[in-house]
Amino acid sequence: MDFFERSLLIHEQLRGKIGVVGKMPIASRDDLSLAYTPGVARPCEVIASDQNKARELTIKRNSVAVVTDGSAVLGLGNIGPHAAIPVMEGKSLLFKEFANIDAWPICLDTQDVDEIVATVRRIAPVFGGINLEDISAPRCFAVEQQLQDIGVPVFHDDQHGTAIVLLAALLNAAKVLERDITQMKVVINGAGAAGTAIARLLRCVGHSPNVCIPVDDVVVCDSKGAIHNSRSDLANYKHELLSYTNRENRRGTLQDMIDGADVFIGVSKGNLLSSDDVSTMATDSIVLAMANPTPEIMPDDARRGGAAVVGTGRSDFPNQINNVLAFPGIFRGALDAGASVISEEMKIAAAHALASATSRPSPERVLPDPLDRSVAPRVAAAVAEAAQRNDS
Amino acid sequence: MDFFERSLLIHEQLRGKIGVVGKMPIASRDDLSLAYTPGVARPCEVIASDQNKARELTIKRNSVAVVTDGSAVLGLGNIGPHAAIPVMEGKSLLFKEFANIDAWPICLDTQDVDEIVATVRRIAPVFGGINLEDISAPRCFAVEQQLQDIGVPVFHDDQHGTAIVLLAALLNAAKVLERDITQMKVVINGAGAAGTAIARLLRCVGHSPNVCIPVDDVVVCDSKGAIHNSRSDLANYKHELLSYTNRENRRGTLQDMIDGADVFIGVSKGNLLSSDDVSTMATDSIVLAMANPTPEIMPDDARRGGAAVVGTGRSDFPNQINNVLAFPGIFRGALDAGASVISEEMKIAAAHALASATSRPSPERVLPDPLDRSVAPRVAAAVAEAAQRNDS
Repeated sequence: MDFFERSLLIHEQLRGKIGVVGKMPIASRDDLSLAYTPGVARPCEVIASDQNKARELTIKRNSVAVVTDGSAVLGLGNIGPHAAIPVMEGKSLLFKEFANIDAWPICLDTQDVDEIVATVRRIAPVFGGINLEDISAPRCFAVEQQLQDIGVPVFHDDQHGTAIVLLAALLNAAKVLERDITQMKVVINGAGAAGTAIARLLRCVGHSPNVCIPVDDVVVCDSKGAIHNSRSDLANYKHELLSYTNRENRRGTLQDMIDGADVFIGVSKGNLLSSDDVSTMATDSIVLAMANPTPEIMPDDARRGGAAVVGTGRSDFPNQINNVLAFPGIFRGALDAGASVISEEMKIAAAHALASATSRPSPERVLPDPLDRSVAPRVAAAVAEAAQRNDS
Repeated sequence: MDFFERSLLIHEQLRGKIGVVGKMPIASRDDLSLAYTPGVARPCEVIASDQNKARELTIKRNSVAVVTDGSAVLGLGNIGPHAAIPVMEGKSLLFKEFANIDAWPICLDTQDVDEIVATVRRIAPVFGGINLEDISAPRCFAVEQQLQDIGVPVFHDDQHGTAIVLLAALLNAAKVLERDITQMKVVINGAGAAGTAIARLLRCVGHSPNVCIPVDDVVVCDSKGAIHNSRSDLANYKHELLSYTNRENRRGTLQDMIDGADVFIGVSKGNLLSSDDVSTMATDSIVLAMANPTPEIMPDDARRGGAAVVGTGRSDFPNQINNVLAFPGIFRGALDAGASVISEEMKIAAAHALASATSRPSPERVLPDPLDRSVAPRVAAAVAEAAQRNDS
């Protein structure tokens, strides 16, 4: 049986990859009266007089909603909320496996920004965090931004999770190549959710908690080439990128941009780059080609073009940029700290923790194994510490 | 330590009476690829081409949202969505314990009918059923009615769960007293969610699936006495009651109404009735006084007044009218049948199944023990069968 048929069979057998479990027995009338009525009235009254007590007395301490509108699911596109359920269940399963978080899928039957925002606001009370997932750009930016004041962290994993893992890979790649990350010339191909978030995160990669050191030379390309300020076709969110990318206002194709660049970051489509393209890059270049399932360039081709570190989104090549390395620890840390947002500082702390969780970094190993259970606790500790720094 | 402090301590220790559990291990890269990306794409594609497959491939088959707006929580009133979390968790725990249903609390930060309806519609895709809970009357009627077309059963337990258990108790009380339920004179005190639903359900108590036999003589009282058609102060939903109650248009106080009545059903407030009041009822009367925590009349007083069968909402007296006898089996049956609504036929089937699940009915035992694990499967089977009759 082929791989995809095996996956279908597993889904048919399980009919739900997650379930709910009770944490206390109901074996006697006393149990029933303590867990439900009339005993439950007491914790209710305590929370009614102090809403913050919900974190001490209920699942809010440990729960995350995995929210999608089904508009940009994996590489499948706009398949709607029902077809997105298996992905959100899978995400919930990973939250449990890697960070012991009780995550529940919420698949919304609307793709209207205002309706998504209103709905998430209204269901927020029982959740300690909101993981936005597979919502297409540019709507995902507005949704996330408008939800920052709801009192619990709201985090769009396709943006920030990807950006954090990417930054960790880049930090270790710079380390093994003995280069200064802030001095590298970086080209990001793809100006959607992930590309935009990566560009934002690269504004602050320095180690010092109080000083923000950016990667100075970043150019973002979309399907029409470099994003520069003479283009009249730019959506607002692409225009905003220009306040911290392409300072020299270079124009040209992707190929023009990577000529002489140190780093290529692909969050676009498969088969866009050739070995010859990579050979125009600086010596010992870094190619992180994350298009799925087919990377922008296959690893062998990138190496043939002179790349010294190559990563992809795939598990069958070295250096897999896999979000599971980040989101469980990030939410674990945010929940543990009782954080109300996931700040830039927390994201950067996560990237550095992830980079330093990589044992013996090498060109073939700039990230930990996605199955390494020690990663999420390390990321969580760094994120919680950064959250507490924010508060102090 | 007193009972309520014990409950608080348990809630502090558990910090969530329910949790999420993964149903497949993530021990290898293969597991990760099958449960999540890229393998999960296959079940997604199958559902994208046929939305109904969500029930075969995801948790939708077995999931229920326990939805409240926190407006009428237990006897505590309008304590809001955060303070309602412990109750909704408790309910979710009971769903799991008694019917192996994966229920998740949704506590809404709105009490506007249109917003509640819109929100439940939007979150419906991942759920196989919606249990509405602790939403105050009359808003609960509008919310439930407007959600009947969403494709999964929507059931307000405070209305119908209570009504179903009550009807089961009444069926067995009639049986042990060798009376014809349809010929009994019934007075319902309380015209809120439960009282209204009980009156509706008594329109069809007969056994035959194709013939609807009502209890003919039902009068509903509110705090101002009998609801009759000369009253100018009636809200719409109380006015609607008159199309099937108080056919003789009697006027007067609660005391006037129970004079000569066979059955008193209390879903109102504590200490409203005296032994003397009960003594004006017909011989061998039935008193089901469900106000919580203090019944409309204490069981000893009711018996002193001549009541032959007495029930309350409390676990420390015989004949507890406890919703846990109904809702787990009702949703189990509806989910098993893939029902899109919970029809009147399904409710009546549930009441009859519950009545017949009572081993050796007696005046002190007109309902099964709430902890009896054999009840929910029996109710579920009857409900599923009724659902299939509806469809055929």
